[in-house]
Amino acid sequence: MRRTRTFTAKSLTKDLFADSLIYHAINMKVGIVGASGYTGGELLRILAGHRECEVVCATSRRYEGRHVSSLNPNLEDIVDLKFENLSAEDVAKRSDFVFTATPHGTSMDIVPALLGRGTRVVDLSGDFRFFDIAVYERYYGEHTAKDVKAVYGLPELHRAEIKNAELVANPGCYPTSVILGLSSLIKEDIIELDRIVVDSKSGISGAGATPKPATHYTMAGDNVSPYKVISHQHMPEIEQELNLLRDGVKVSFVPHIVPVIRGLESTIHVFLNKEVSSEEIRDACADLYKDEPFVRVLKVGEIPRMSAVRGSNYCDIGGFEVDKERNRAVVVSVIDNLVKGASGQAVQNMNIMMGYRETEGLDKVGLHP
Amino acid sequence: MRRTRTFTAKSLTKDLFADSLIYHAINMKVGIVGASGYTGGELLRILAGHRECEVVCATSRRYEGRHVSSLNPNLEDIVDLKFENLSAEDVAKRSDFVFTATPHGTSMDIVPALLGRGTRVVDLSGDFRFFDIAVYERYYGEHTAKDVKAVYGLPELHRAEIKNAELVANPGCYPTSVILGLSSLIKEDIIELDRIVVDSKSGISGAGATPKPATHYTMAGDNVSPYKVISHQHMPEIEQELNLLRDGVKVSFVPHIVPVIRGLESTIHVFLNKEVSSEEIRDACADLYKDEPFVRVLKVGEIPRMSAVRGSNYCDIGGFEVDKERNRAVVVSVIDNLVKGASGQAVQNMNIMMGYRETEGLDKVGLHP
Amino acid sequence: MRRTRTFTAKSLTKDLFADSLIYHAINMKVGIVGASGYTGGELLRILAGHRECEVVCATSRRYEGRHVSSLNPNLEDIVDLKFENLSAEDVAKRSDFVFTATPHGTSMDIVPALLGRGTRVVDLSGDFRFFDIAVYERYYGEHTAKDVKAVYGLPELHRAEIKNAELVANPGCYPTSVILGLSSLIKEDIIELDRIVVDSKSGISGAGATPKPATHYTMAGDNVSPYKVISHQHMPEIEQELNLLRDGVKVSFVPHIVPVIRGLESTIHVFLNKEVSSEEIRDACADLYKDEPFVRVLKVGEIPRMSAVRGSNYCDIGGFEVDKERNRAVVVSVIDNLVKGASGQAVQNMNIMMGYRETEGLDKVGLHP
Amino acid sequence: MRRTRTFTAKSLTKDLFADSLIYHAINMKVGIVGASGYTGGELLRILAGHRECEVVCATSRRYEGRHVSSLNPNLEDIVDLKFENLSAEDVAKRSDFVFTATPHGTSMDIVPALLGRGTRVVDLSGDFRFFDIAVYERYYGEHTAKDVKAVYGLPELHRAEIKNAELVANPGCYPTSVILGLSSLIKEDIIELDRIVVDSKSGISGAGATPKPATHYTMAGDNVSPYKVISHQHMPEIEQELNLLRDGVKVSFVPHIVPVIRGLESTIHVFLNKEVSSEEIRDACADLYKDEPFVRVLKVGEIPRMSAVRGSNYCDIGGFEVDKERNRAVVVSVIDNLVKGASGQAVQNMNIMMGYRETEGLDKVGLHP
Repeated sequence: MRRTRTFTAKSLTKDLFADSLIYHAINMKVGIVGASGYTGGELLRILAGHRECEVVCATSRRYEGRHVSSLNPNLEDIVDLKFENLSAEDVAKRSDFVFTATPHGTSMDIVPALLGRGTRVVDLSGDFRFFDIAVYERYYGEHTAKDVKAVYGLPELHRAEIKNAELVANPGCYPTSVILGLSSLIKEDIIELDRIVVDSKSGISGAGATPKPATHYTMAGDNVSPYKVISHQHMPEIEQELNLLRDGVKVSFVPHIVPVIRGLESTIHVFLNKEVSSEEIRDACADLYKDEPFVRVLKVGEIPRMSAVRGSNYCDIGGFEVDKERNRAVVVSVIDNLVKGASGQAVQNMNIMMGYRETEGLDKVGLHP
Repeated sequence: MRRTRTFTAKSLTKDLFADSLIYHAINMKVGIVGASGYTGGELLRILAGHRECEVVCATSRRYEGRHVSSLNPNLEDIVDLKFENLSAEDVAKRSDFVFTATPHGTSMDIVPALLGRGTRVVDLSGDFRFFDIAVYERYYGEHTAKDVKAVYGLPELHRAEIKNAELVANPGCYPTSVILGLSSLIKEDIIELDRIVVDSKSGISGAGATPKPATHYTMAGDNVSPYKVISHQHMPEIEQELNLLRDGVKVSFVPHIVPVIRGLESTIHVFLNKEVSSEEIRDACADLYKDEPFVRVLKVGEIPRMSAVRGSNYCDIGGFEVDKERNRAVVVSVIDNLVKGASGQAVQNMNIMMGYRETEGLDKVGLHP
Repeated sequence: MRRTRTFTAKSLTKDLFADSLIYHAINMKVGIVGASGYTGGELLRILAGHRECEVVCATSRRYEGRHVSSLNPNLEDIVDLKFENLSAEDVAKRSDFVFTATPHGTSMDIVPALLGRGTRVVDLSGDFRFFDIAVYERYYGEHTAKDVKAVYGLPELHRAEIKNAELVANPGCYPTSVILGLSSLIKEDIIELDRIVVDSKSGISGAGATPKPATHYTMAGDNVSPYKVISHQHMPEIEQELNLLRDGVKVSFVPHIVPVIRGLESTIHVFLNKEVSSEEIRDACADLYKDEPFVRVLKVGEIPRMSAVRGSNYCDIGGFEVDKERNRAVVVSVIDNLVKGASGQAVQNMNIMMGYRETEGLDKVGLHP
Repeated sequence: MRRTRTFTAKSLTKDLFADSLIYHAINMKVGIVGASGYTGGELLRILAGHRECEVVCATSRRYEGRHVSSLNPNLEDIVDLKFENLSAEDVAKRSDFVFTATPHGTSMDIVPALLGRGTRVVDLSGDFRFFDIAVYERYYGEHTAKDVKAVYGLPELHRAEIKNAELVANPGCYPTSVILGLSSLIKEDIIELDRIVVDSKSGISGAGATPKPATHYTMAGDNVSPYKVISHQHMPEIEQELNLLRDGVKVSFVPHIVPVIRGLESTIHVFLNKEVSSEEIRDACADLYKDEPFVRVLKVGEIPRMSAVRGSNYCDIGGFEVDKERNRAVVVSVIDNLVKGASGQAVQNMNIMMGYRETEGLDKVGLHP
């Protein structure tokens, strides 16, 4: 990734210290497989400001030979790279580290070849997120790389294993917001585990770059649309992870498409099994994440906004209101679906795996308003 | 309301039959108190096409003397009327029937004076919706007209009483969508009554015509915002009505503001207390509303769209999917918050009270896309 | 088009007068060719409330056998009709009048067969809008029905010819707003005819029902995008019509896509060739359209809003401000691109051709807000 | 501005080099007067990543005592600062450099006091943008600090003077996009100077943080609204600067509000006075800005997108199409109105004034999609 202008964060570092003749070597070569989608573009955007690595190849069969800025006009003059049609082997040869931003069902064909050549990988698809292949196959279809083991890449839960993983399965966007919002409630053992209702609303970039009737402006605009109301593939993913915290969790999950470009909000409805106050559930959450660089816990009654996290890697959690008459509480969790919900979290995982500072390249402040 | 053009439905009727010298007399005079808000404007829009009545006065202290089209540019050349600053007495003198589209807390000052002069009234505020004044006072503040009795104006539940009512309390927007979506589930006795979760999303017109930080385009755009997550005043209203169907209903209700101008969607999450199929719950709902002119029950798995009801008086109900593993079902209910959620339903109530055809003035097809 | 509910305007008329045993016969049979697009859906919506005709067939190869409400959920329970795959001959046999809502290049294959069987036609494509086939071929491609003659269907300019036409070419959306906004300025001979700049902004429904990258929510949302900045096919259409009023008109036309579902705004910038006041140009416009049922001329300085015309057949014209220092004036014209810009105008043309009241079926008030 | 988390660009720099014991001193203290608006919030966001300065005070009378993150939830945990109610004197005492983000008419009361104490200032209001006070007074009202001289802060035109200025008047958002888009056309002497038409569309954040009817979601959504069509105060500002390039420029300028949060697009319509090709006008523009860090000139026919610059300091210029038949050309210029159109450009000016690298703190990549 040659830079044609010299003002990205990385270059700044070098230039600023140029007098003192101390240079910071950029030595890790990164490949992105399936780079033409939104998560691929977002990886390019984020890594343009990462000082430890350089993107050396971005693959796309369909857009082979076109400049990455043809799909990502924000990268014009910033990232000088063309899409290439490369085999997994070629990517592995040229890269120290690879992100696979390929669709579900495709990653399982590519990742084994990358791992086999010693490349560490973060996979952004659903292919390696499940311990139990039967669950995968029920929601996604046949799995052809059942022996490949991955670590579920939610740093707030699995940082230690991520550090040593060869392959990290980057979490889904909905699960990221929901698991982060629910963990403290489950750990504290204060809610009915089989009566959890999660009503999530996703920005339309979550549906990908390919135009479809459901994402046509005229259909998605001025509308709110629940979909896959009992069968979304992120429901078992959420349940898998929450059951690690405490057995017996069932999540009644309904995702919605809303007229928002970036942003994902989860309204988490729980029934309480003991008397707790709003402050207690808020403090338990704040305590759980007190050392986390990318989780911000708001005060009781404060509702997180999408603009507070837009373009950033934060998950903001708020609400925390207890309704004593109905033995229930409401927690609200918000992320940028393309950043903490996808590419930002993938870079966070890479940082952990490589021993870089966890926040490297991710020091973006949300774009409000 | 003098019409300066001659092509409203009413005029059409007259002209069409002009040869045969049969005229249809327009003889009911209607007043609108508090006509400068969105529900007032919507009443004017709907009544412009109503063949049985004529709007003779529209009150607003703030906009006194200004033409109604100054706030409602859609009425230009169609409704020739100015806002007036009139007492309840003056309105009653000039009107056979009155809509009070005044804010909560104001209607209770005006309605008794109207009723006292023999005018029948549909009130669009929350002031007369509660049997139990204590509930009202907990959510809204002091009530100063406790002796005034009203019928709750949801025709699908209370048509017979509405017919003879002097005062009809027009339901809230959220309750309309929620009660219609839940009634058959409760009547059939198939759900856990105290574990009902309703997650509703309202278009921003529901917040009224007065600009506020929360409705500023920069704040409401590209965002989804839950609010009053345990304390919205529509929660007890929903519970009051559903408890008429079966005792013990508790509704965990969370409203949201979404970037939509008109439209209200309620995702209704219920836990089942017996084994039922998707088709069974769908058919029970379809059966309940089979004679209703303004409820359309979709097929299992079909999700209603806001554009299907936009500008119309329909409530579309769909989803009806049963998740056997989690003993739950999801039902989705959609209305236009300003029509079936406010002014359209108010006109439907007037039609019932006056013995007009129930659909008069409400024969609008939704504006899709 | 059997109606499963009985409350459309047409039915209302019948029912209301049922006692008096006077029935209004619905006797004209209408066919819609290419009914699966947005203009086809909009014809169905509008004709559902038209008392003189009945839609008897709606063709679509792609959606053959599917109910029209599968694409138009607003028509659920209102229009009971399935898409059929019919030849032009079959449509002609079943219909007294046909709308061809087919794409450019397709209408020219169908219309001659319809006319040959004595059916009168309004064509909504660009195929028959040009006197000069060379202009058509430059902007659209080869024309294969060069001998078929049509009347340009802008009633405000050509009402008399429309009345007797066998084939009316329904105007484009941009030309409708621009020609109506500019006509009085040209007639009055007060502007530089070759320095007219028109900057138009269209809602995304104007791009049709087929999802494309440019209409993907993520691309069309939060963006304003000029396109075909020197070569849009509506530029010669505008010039053709305005040159009928006065020779030498050249229009510098740039269309834009804006994040709006329905609505089209044209900002018309003209340079004045004599001293006139804002009031004079406003009054000339008001005078020109004083008898027009669907043109509303606002006061000097008033800017029309899209919501004032949304869903209605109006064209609202405003602005009319003169900048004496720069010898220029600005006029603003707004329509609903699917109604006055397409299907509403098509029905207006049918009404004129058939001798119906011109506003029949078009008595819709705009949906504000 | 104490940082409670340690991952802003500034901190990163320090940490990264911690081993080598080389620290980069942060030594310039910055004050922001009128910090509660959108440009104030945007200054805080941008300066959070600036390694040469520290924001030491942010004033607001209205929000005195409240944390800046109460208005800017994106700054939660990132900027630890409260709004203070300070006199100009107190701000000057505590700051080496001040941004005045106060409304027009207020800056003129504050800036002289700041300059009098030796503080250098970038003023974001319109108060000091005009050489000719009479022009200011015609468009804004009385001026009370007529003797204060400022440099017009468009770096691409006035970099040398900005370097030595005590006071820089930061340009308006519309003028930034328009002047950058038009300069090369005027310098090349190829257009009719008195027939320039500029049709600009601004995101709603340009109207400020205070809710108004025009920015209410229900009014601004699904609408395009021209305003001040012959009298916007940015018209004389554009003319002032372009007349420096060549005498006799008159700009027919019409601004619009569009349903976009951030982003400003100007469609520039010019009439040519000699024969030139699209490539020639494109190349002249590219040549003019070839060393500019924040202007990207696209290829002929490429249209800039708002998402390409969203959150970044870029101005993207494209289009450049020549219509030989009408002797005209169209150029399109796009910025983020809050960044290059306000706070980003203000920081760019500070960087130039202080001798910092011009791109410091501004190395943000646009947020696409």
